[in-house]
Amino acid sequence: MAAIRYELIKKDKQTGARLGILHTPHGSYETPMFMPVGTLATVKTMSPEELKELGAGVILSNTYHLWLRPGHEIVREAGGLHKFMNWDQAILTDSGGFQVFSLSQFRKIEEEGVHFRNHLSGEKLFLSPEKATEIQNALGADIMMAFDECPPFDADYNYMKQSVERTSRWAERCLKAHSRSHDQALFGIVQGGGNEDLRKQSARDLISLDFPGYAVGGLSVGEPKEEMNRVLEFTTPLLPENKPRYLMGVGSPDSLIDGAIRGIDMFDCVLPTRIARNGTCMTSSGRLVVKNAKYARDFRPIDEHCDCYTCRNYSRAYIRHLIHTNEIFGFRLCTYHNLHFLIKLMEQVRQAIREDRLQDFRDEFFEQYGFNKPNAKNF
Amino acid sequence: MAAIRYELIKKDKQTGARLGILHTPHGSYETPMFMPVGTLATVKTMSPEELKELGAGVILSNTYHLWLRPGHEIVREAGGLHKFMNWDQAILTDSGGFQVFSLSQFRKIEEEGVHFRNHLSGEKLFLSPEKATEIQNALGADIMMAFDECPPFDADYNYMKQSVERTSRWAERCLKAHSRSHDQALFGIVQGGGNEDLRKQSARDLISLDFPGYAVGGLSVGEPKEEMNRVLEFTTPLLPENKPRYLMGVGSPDSLIDGAIRGIDMFDCVLPTRIARNGTCMTSSGRLVVKNAKYARDFRPIDEHCDCYTCRNYSRAYIRHLIHTNEIFGFRLCTYHNLHFLIKLMEQVRQAIREDRLQDFRDEFFEQYGFNKPNAKNF
Repeated sequence: MAAIRYELIKKDKQTGARLGILHTPHGSYETPMFMPVGTLATVKTMSPEELKELGAGVILSNTYHLWLRPGHEIVREAGGLHKFMNWDQAILTDSGGFQVFSLSQFRKIEEEGVHFRNHLSGEKLFLSPEKATEIQNALGADIMMAFDECPPFDADYNYMKQSVERTSRWAERCLKAHSRSHDQALFGIVQGGGNEDLRKQSARDLISLDFPGYAVGGLSVGEPKEEMNRVLEFTTPLLPENKPRYLMGVGSPDSLIDGAIRGIDMFDCVLPTRIARNGTCMTSSGRLVVKNAKYARDFRPIDEHCDCYTCRNYSRAYIRHLIHTNEIFGFRLCTYHNLHFLIKLMEQVRQAIREDRLQDFRDEFFEQYGFNKPNAKNF
Repeated sequence: MAAIRYELIKKDKQTGARLGILHTPHGSYETPMFMPVGTLATVKTMSPEELKELGAGVILSNTYHLWLRPGHEIVREAGGLHKFMNWDQAILTDSGGFQVFSLSQFRKIEEEGVHFRNHLSGEKLFLSPEKATEIQNALGADIMMAFDECPPFDADYNYMKQSVERTSRWAERCLKAHSRSHDQALFGIVQGGGNEDLRKQSARDLISLDFPGYAVGGLSVGEPKEEMNRVLEFTTPLLPENKPRYLMGVGSPDSLIDGAIRGIDMFDCVLPTRIARNGTCMTSSGRLVVKNAKYARDFRPIDEHCDCYTCRNYSRAYIRHLIHTNEIFGFRLCTYHNLHFLIKLMEQVRQAIREDRLQDFRDEFFEQYGFNKPNAKNF
């Protein structure tokens, strides 16, 4: 019996987007969905109760960060990540691969794994498929990710091909090292940058290993949004219909809709929580930087069309004051609002799929949000 | 009709401590009580809903800080402090006097008021009884404080006498400037340092002006705790029985009990919220610095005898991890716990008064807390 199961409910007749349910050991969640990021076993500023009130389903936590602090053995001793952080819904942990390539210094990639230095202390570390799997088994998330290499999107073809092949060999080693397949589902990550034949090769390799779910990796790393859409258009059709598909690191409203249209079921990103702590909010008419001085006497809510806790109870003037004075409650209010915005957006996406009108919804949303205007402020 | 009213319920037969009810335009609250501090129109890290869940009654906000940011006119335009910060229970604002003397630089005291420089920008500012009252009228708190001078506890007698006399003249000017006595109660502040005759003079002056409540100021400014108790012993008997008595800036558990024993009804202090953000917690067996490495693998709650949200759901190991990594949720959990500790302590004090056993309660509490031990870690 697999730890998780994906149930396809229907496809949108306008776009082919998938409405489904992800069944996990910690509850079942409708897809497409956005997963808030809780890097260090906490979604920054939020309590578990607030996340539930927001309708957050699965949350993500970072293997690399938890390995360094507090250490996976401490989380294991605590009874696993769910118990450690008081979260009884589903959790996904990444493999640490992305952080090794984005945060660490002096990395050296070998067939065995990656040598690098801790981004906090400079200490020498080594991460391998076996080690990343061992750590994730200790953390005990419902979904874990295979340890992969994340080359730059524009790496040269030969390097990218070698990297894809190594990632496939590493994926197989992760599967072998995985000791809790009964209650933790290990996903494979399709790499290959912008090359269709390498994405095909990566998908074929991983599908032959029969993972319970697949991620599309190596996107949202600085490439133009059109490039991401182009890659998704030829990559998601390669993946099995009966398994969930996860687009890693994507959280801007337009990309969530465009990803769903291209057959993606799961997304995660630090964007809504990170920009919130800088006083930047997502609204139905685009980006609003509430910390700006022009909101000092603006007693309207962040978003007049929003019914979240923040918008029901607090003015732009109050939140601007809190952000301006570095008050934690301001960070909380903006975080709450932004997560509500994306979680509600995904509900609207699912409703549009149900009603076979996702393309219409996209067009209306982009118009209202201002994405169609020249110089639109995106994220 | 006065804005507030104090109702004396009974006195403790062991100590003379008062059990009462403070009736305000925003609810009635049992005394003795501890008031959490929300300097900048937010009790740091907490939501209003959490404060209510904790049983916080009156909260305090700082006139000086709100005058500088966001400015009292903005708060007035927002509909007053209650509406601005979404708090429908009672609020007390201080006069700014203490901050002028503790935070600002280059101050020059004249009969008219105090010239000083803004502690943030260095800008020249002037605060007077009239200005402090105007700001507090704009903020609209249920209880406001007369603008006073806060000389050092050990200021020489002649200076202290002049200062007390000026504070009395300023108090009268505050009363005259006060434009909202129907819904805001202005309290006088008894000064005089450690001198019994000056405290007597100050109390007599202020009582002749018939304030609806009286504070004891100039304590908890570094003097030994025995000194504070000594001053309270000769000061509170000078104050009218039918008015509330407020000891400013006091929040350590021992001083709350000792203040109640000496006839104090209201207390405020940043202590529980400030130390929380450094990972220091108040527990039934004394101070616990949860950020210390020794708690990294300690899966017990902060306080095994505590039933607060933090202690019901989170381990020392988890909270230590959060504080260690500067995670805001850690600051929230410690703040919640510390406020719960003091609010519950005051409930216990009131129950002990009800049962005429406050001295016994004090002795038991000091024993369990470890205050009686040599080198006890106090706050």
